[in-house]
Amino acid sequence: MTATDIAGYTYGQSLPASPVTTSDLDRLLSTLLWTDDDAAALERAGAILGPQVEEILDLWYGFVGSHAHLVVSFNGADGQPSGAYLAAVRARFGQWIRDLCDRPWDQQWLDYQHEIARRHTVTMGRTDAVGSAQTHVPLRYLIAFVWPITATIRPFLANGSSDAADVDAMHTAWFKAVTLTVALWSQPYAPDRW
Amino acid sequence: MTATDIAGYTYGQSLPASPVTTSDLDRLLSTLLWTDDDAAALERAGAILGPQVEEILDLWYGFVGSHAHLVVSFNGADGQPSGAYLAAVRARFGQWIRDLCDRPWDQQWLDYQHEIARRHTVTMGRTDAVGSAQTHVPLRYLIAFVWPITATIRPFLANGSSDAADVDAMHTAWFKAVTLTVALWSQPYAPDRW
Repeated sequence: MTATDIAGYTYGQSLPASPVTTSDLDRLLSTLLWTDDDAAALERAGAILGPQVEEILDLWYGFVGSHAHLVVSFNGADGQPSGAYLAAVRARFGQWIRDLCDRPWDQQWLDYQHEIARRHTVTMGRTDAVGSAQTHVPLRYLIAFVWPITATIRPFLANGSSDAADVDAMHTAWFKAVTLTVALWSQPYAPDRW
Repeated sequence: MTATDIAGYTYGQSLPASPVTTSDLDRLLSTLLWTDDDAAALERAGAILGPQVEEILDLWYGFVGSHAHLVVSFNGADGQPSGAYLAAVRARFGQWIRDLCDRPWDQQWLDYQHEIARRHTVTMGRTDAVGSAQTHVPLRYLIAFVWPITATIRPFLANGSSDAADVDAMHTAWFKAVTLTVALWSQPYAPDRW
């Protein structure tokens, strides 16, 4: 599947500007001690993870699907998990992996991160017209996901590199990038205290 | 310094009940795939980290102090970093390390986590009567701190264990515990979407 085939994937399509500026991003990156080595390691990670995206999503969806308090975020208007909604989000979730590793972190990237953040809050469910029964993804689980989304990726990185130090470097860059993502996606939850 | 000597440390002192329940905690722990092995590893980590708390705080304070956008949260009424405020928070930050590893995660622990969360938001600066120039610690940095607070702890764990698998287990438990802490402390930022 190419990015342009993904329903609801509107990267670069004249989105509203994110309230998060590239200066805000720079301060976040310095808080994460982000380095040029991290950037290079994340690019290597992208090359390894790209061909494994479906397997990664299988794992993550298995995790979400086995926890009632998580899968509820995918409920449709009837209060039951919506297969169509799960599938639509899955395709974009996979593209998020690729974009995080491969795209330049510029204003266009920030604008799309903010679009994703809004879809977790103020526009929940509208992209896929599922009549979502939920009004938001709970902030607590968005934050808690830093751990599973970080920890589970290491074996996939190890599939593409037999150098433990290289896997460590890629995993560190991924951990930082996931933490950055959650920080960016938290903006609409608390615009006045973000 | 014993816990009872720490100014503003009010653990167990008839605090208001946290809006976060032990059932909420259980769901967060399942999101973090928290296990009995993690609990045992965190206890071992506490025994190793306890005697190194001052060195850990030296590192963390050096990090905060070297970033203008972080140290601003310690500004007093005059808009300059307050030495008294930095020192008062430092003592409680050290105790947070000990409590995280050593205390049972029960309602009393949740109540104090919520008290800390309020001190980052609605009661910012009041505990130490510094007339804080800031109204809150920005949510984005609270979240971003998951990375430095996790990554920097590994060498301190390695100081107390020569078994790499044991260090890995303790570090994983610490990572989960830090992520949990940030999830709990985020509650007052977005009570309606938490």
